[in-house]
Amino acid sequence: MTLNERTWEISEASFALNKLHHGETILTIGNGYMGLRAIFEEGYPGEIVSTLVHGVFDHAQGDLVPELVNIPNPLPVIVEVDGEPFHMTRGTLYGYNRILDLREATLQRGVLWGNSKGAIVQITFERFASLEMEHVLAQRISIRALTQPCTIKVIASIDGTQTNLGINHWEKISANCREERMYATGGTAQSGYEVAVASALRSDQRVGAITQTQLGKLQPALQIECKLETEQIATFYKYSAIHSSRDANVPIEAADKTLDMCLDRGWESLLAAHRAEWGKYWQASDVEIDGDEIAQRSLRFAIYHVLIAAPRHDERVSIGAKTLSGPGYRGHVFWDTELFMLPFLTVTQPKLARNLLMYRYHNLQGARNKAREGSYEGAMYPWESTDTGEETTPRWTNPAPDGTRIRIWTGDTEQHISADIVYAVMQYWHWTGDQDFFVRHGVEIVLDVGVFWGSRVKYNADQDRYELEMQIGPDEYHENINNSVFTNSMVRWNLRTALAVWQWIQAKYPDQADALRLRLDLTNERLSHWQDIVDKMFILQDTERGILEQFENFFKLEPVALDHWNPRVTPMDAILGHEAIQHVMIIKQADVVMLMALLDDEFGSREEKLRNWNFYYPLVDHGSSLSPSTHAWVAGRLGLLEEAYKEFLFGAGIDLEDAKGNVRDGIHGAAAGGLWEAAAFGFAGLQVEGDTFTVDPHLPEHWRSMTLHLSFRGQQHTIRLGKEQ
Amino acid sequence: MTLNERTWEISEASFALNKLHHGETILTIGNGYMGLRAIFEEGYPGEIVSTLVHGVFDHAQGDLVPELVNIPNPLPVIVEVDGEPFHMTRGTLYGYNRILDLREATLQRGVLWGNSKGAIVQITFERFASLEMEHVLAQRISIRALTQPCTIKVIASIDGTQTNLGINHWEKISANCREERMYATGGTAQSGYEVAVASALRSDQRVGAITQTQLGKLQPALQIECKLETEQIATFYKYSAIHSSRDANVPIEAADKTLDMCLDRGWESLLAAHRAEWGKYWQASDVEIDGDEIAQRSLRFAIYHVLIAAPRHDERVSIGAKTLSGPGYRGHVFWDTELFMLPFLTVTQPKLARNLLMYRYHNLQGARNKAREGSYEGAMYPWESTDTGEETTPRWTNPAPDGTRIRIWTGDTEQHISADIVYAVMQYWHWTGDQDFFVRHGVEIVLDVGVFWGSRVKYNADQDRYELEMQIGPDEYHENINNSVFTNSMVRWNLRTALAVWQWIQAKYPDQADALRLRLDLTNERLSHWQDIVDKMFILQDTERGILEQFENFFKLEPVALDHWNPRVTPMDAILGHEAIQHVMIIKQADVVMLMALLDDEFGSREEKLRNWNFYYPLVDHGSSLSPSTHAWVAGRLGLLEEAYKEFLFGAGIDLEDAKGNVRDGIHGAAAGGLWEAAAFGFAGLQVEGDTFTVDPHLPEHWRSMTLHLSFRGQQHTIRLGKEQ
Repeated sequence: MTLNERTWEISEASFALNKLHHGETILTIGNGYMGLRAIFEEGYPGEIVSTLVHGVFDHAQGDLVPELVNIPNPLPVIVEVDGEPFHMTRGTLYGYNRILDLREATLQRGVLWGNSKGAIVQITFERFASLEMEHVLAQRISIRALTQPCTIKVIASIDGTQTNLGINHWEKISANCREERMYATGGTAQSGYEVAVASALRSDQRVGAITQTQLGKLQPALQIECKLETEQIATFYKYSAIHSSRDANVPIEAADKTLDMCLDRGWESLLAAHRAEWGKYWQASDVEIDGDEIAQRSLRFAIYHVLIAAPRHDERVSIGAKTLSGPGYRGHVFWDTELFMLPFLTVTQPKLARNLLMYRYHNLQGARNKAREGSYEGAMYPWESTDTGEETTPRWTNPAPDGTRIRIWTGDTEQHISADIVYAVMQYWHWTGDQDFFVRHGVEIVLDVGVFWGSRVKYNADQDRYELEMQIGPDEYHENINNSVFTNSMVRWNLRTALAVWQWIQAKYPDQADALRLRLDLTNERLSHWQDIVDKMFILQDTERGILEQFENFFKLEPVALDHWNPRVTPMDAILGHEAIQHVMIIKQADVVMLMALLDDEFGSREEKLRNWNFYYPLVDHGSSLSPSTHAWVAGRLGLLEEAYKEFLFGAGIDLEDAKGNVRDGIHGAAAGGLWEAAAFGFAGLQVEGDTFTVDPHLPEHWRSMTLHLSFRGQQHTIRLGKEQ
Repeated sequence: MTLNERTWEISEASFALNKLHHGETILTIGNGYMGLRAIFEEGYPGEIVSTLVHGVFDHAQGDLVPELVNIPNPLPVIVEVDGEPFHMTRGTLYGYNRILDLREATLQRGVLWGNSKGAIVQITFERFASLEMEHVLAQRISIRALTQPCTIKVIASIDGTQTNLGINHWEKISANCREERMYATGGTAQSGYEVAVASALRSDQRVGAITQTQLGKLQPALQIECKLETEQIATFYKYSAIHSSRDANVPIEAADKTLDMCLDRGWESLLAAHRAEWGKYWQASDVEIDGDEIAQRSLRFAIYHVLIAAPRHDERVSIGAKTLSGPGYRGHVFWDTELFMLPFLTVTQPKLARNLLMYRYHNLQGARNKAREGSYEGAMYPWESTDTGEETTPRWTNPAPDGTRIRIWTGDTEQHISADIVYAVMQYWHWTGDQDFFVRHGVEIVLDVGVFWGSRVKYNADQDRYELEMQIGPDEYHENINNSVFTNSMVRWNLRTALAVWQWIQAKYPDQADALRLRLDLTNERLSHWQDIVDKMFILQDTERGILEQFENFFKLEPVALDHWNPRVTPMDAILGHEAIQHVMIIKQADVVMLMALLDDEFGSREEKLRNWNFYYPLVDHGSSLSPSTHAWVAGRLGLLEEAYKEFLFGAGIDLEDAKGNVRDGIHGAAAGGLWEAAAFGFAGLQVEGDTFTVDPHLPEHWRSMTLHLSFRGQQHTIRLGKEQ
């Protein structure tokens, strides 16, 4: 295998139980509609089965919040050799590997396995979730007899007994076989979605008849038996179609039709079309790094995971913090999407980016509801949201063994997300020039969030300034603080932007402006209030040191020599405790530094940035997976290549190396998207300037070149940055 | 950390029980005198403690063979925080890492640990086996209180209860404290070596008195207690001196003197001198690869492990197959040394190479004994040897659970090792021009092994040719075969070389020649017999296919489609069984291909090599860790860069990735040395031609350059090979 090929593969060369869940997560496949963790076809004790479909949320009775529902598992296949079922820890495993091919988005597992009768077989399991036909999951199983003739039985099933780690979401679920097909259909109890999974089994040689069987009450199965001579191969195909009432009137009928198509076209045709679609994805989105195998592979891995989670044909869903790869954060959507994942899509896949922004547009009502509940005006986006757009942040943690639980404040006071969404809208507009989206949808978001902020800030007459109390900034270690520099600055930026956008739309689209004026009550008084806020928003400065103060009294917190707390994996809040961490000068993630990333030159001069960097960088704990990539981005911009590369590698290892120890819960989508940001915005220094885009490369010393693919205002561009240029 | 720094480090970022033994092996430290596995100072259940000293072998009663003795363990240190002993799985571990610094040959472990009383401490353990003072092991332990004042107690001990995985080698062992020192002394039961370990404990602040204690009958200890304020650090030093009766008349007195010196000089001075020596090692032996971080790190790791095992001041010991890093092969020396590890030393560290060759010279008597036992003449080197030079290959495997055991034939019939040693002697002479060694020692080996072969081959009068029956070639899957192409060719080469050397020494050193003529009975009849063998040695050719036949009837073996047996970790002999493997056409490791590596142009034209490569490469199982690097070497020479690089990476992963699953037993020394061979002889195409050396580089596509450091005939050279050259 060449170096280039290796940078397209994530491989797992041996089976280790302590890496079971890590493998399940990082080898997840998906296509923007469904996401399937890399469980074994035959199952494994303690596995976390997870088949998630965008938008299919349900709120179980007694549970704190809704979550993405784990639908019936379409993957199970049992292979019996002379009556003995293949299993990773039964019989004799002579070899094992898994390869996730990032270029083609296929997962392959090879095993060399012997049963107790001396029959050794080579089994190859393949699977992909078709990017061409998003309702299709295809599997192929090839079995070769190596030592002696043997009898093979393949039992494919759908497992309809799935719950979400014990939580049941199904009101009525039924599963059965009809003719040569299997079905599982169910309805979610609270949300009332219908879901249908239909599967069929085929063999290339049809050595025996396909017969029906039942592995359990909700596990219909189809099986084929055949005899293999030594060195003979048998190949089996399992096609599954997944539909829900979100995309079909009668999901089971749609699934049946999709399955007809699969059986009609067959594996090779489906795979070829899937590959072709992925070819287009990579052509638009790849970043090539010459001279750094690890960086190259990590970046492609990150890009892959954002792409498999990005909805292609659905603008009413968005990407959850853990993508569709696991139970973490229960499928909820955070600012992670807009500020970490979406920029990559905006710059390389604008159609996908648009879908995600439309999700926010469609959910404006949820944001307005939330504002009204807080007695504010306008649109106040929820910190966590699902299919409804309502706030779904739990208010409490699950109880600890001693019964204590902690109040979660983010849903109440981490309000900067509304400005973050506006930022993403503006970034999308600047990059794509998508007037249609902006005029019809984007502007409304920008302005209505502006309305919210106008109602949210407080005027301090003593000081003649506007303030914002009870906030959580990106640094979530300090809750309900006042005058977060990050949030206040983003509010100011948001209102300044809103005023400019308002000028622009009045001039260019007066009808649209009039409609918005009415709908959003954009009175002159309101607009001049915004201008007053822009002029007088309080941004905490330490003029002596020439740096910003992250929030009021931040400098009075207890200093901690964080560099003495090494080596450390556990975040500092888990060590010191949720209460104690509030009082010490340790920050969870890029906060003032995040502001530098977002506002860039608006933040200040290079010297101002460096002073702030030098103060805040040593305080950061990287307790959030969002943190390293932002630091890499800013350090890259500042030309601090050693720090930039160190943080880039940290970000690269969050999922691949399980650097934070929690990949079992799912991919850190923001770390994945952030890695692209670090490369593109940091090392390449990519940015929009007026009607063009510019680069300002600061590549790590040993990188020979970096090639970016991007789309700017409808044109594809390939930018090669190298030492020689 | 820069890229360059990363290529000098082997790091372990988390603690996983299933990697316990892997870490113990790969993070081994040593200095050519002692080797210490990377066990934890405080111990761990199931750990494999191993402190090995070159040459200290013992043959326990009832055991099949002698082995290197696991001497008293000088590493133990217990750290108590408020009376609670630090342990990896007690209290709370907030973070952990280990870093083996290859450049400085130091091992560091960092932990962030909390006891049940809320005291969190940062503990840093460091250790090195001094390259300057080879009897010295130095340890430093730094403890910093992070959260609150606490009481620290450090208990350092020597553990004299060591066995070799349950086998006791000690006749009399005593362990005790005297004043502020600890001692363990013992004598090996069969071999009668005396070993002494002496240790002392110091603190940089001497906050409390050092007191004696006893952790067990054979575990004397010294302890210090101190109080730490928050953010205060205490640093402790443990120095150990190891001597044996192989290097001192009274080991305990020598150890006491060495310890005096340590205490006199202190940590910084010892470390500085150790670093300086390692600086020289790397200056002479480093290979720099620009453009491939993984290859660079792997190669340095490989070089490190050969260097820490190479005796510096002792020419009566050699490097065992598993170096000094574990119990595998029980410290025995194989051809691995001469054909895989020694070439690296010959080319970069000729003094160390000389020591290893002198081991073979000193053990000529053992080889002569072995020849005589087989009714042969001359010197027939043992397949496995220890301190005595006698054959120490076990004749049987240990019984399987069902009581069966397998006859091990290598000690009887894997006779090519004698020619391999001659090859190493000649290679050393060509590279170094070390006339003194060659004339006084080398020539005698070359000729006396020639005498052996002359008495060993059989004349087949019917065919008028010389044959060699009952052999095992490098491919050990086929035992007691006839006319191994590898062995027959090496015998022919050996005798041709012996005749040339004989001409040379007669001409240049007639007195030395006369003495050898008498001593080795080099009659004219014998010499013309050698010439007859050279002319008529039977080398099995398949003239039709234009390839060699590995041994008689090899082509009649049952063909197996080995590429269908993927993925596979288990060697094919373990799958098919020891008996069955004899009959199938699968080879364990480079055999004909090994011959191509060794004889190069003498083997034949590039086309002949390619034909043989194409036939034999698909048959190889890599059942031996020696195999990938040889394939990389030959493929590199042939310009088959893809195959060469693939096999290079396989070789690189044998220890670092535990690619064969048996690193717990120790480092694969031949895989380590072989990796350098693949780089130097393969990719760089380094070889001696007459009075100079040449290169013929075929670097992997993505390598920008490779820089070799080497010594040729007393001169240091730095050779930079790159695309631009």
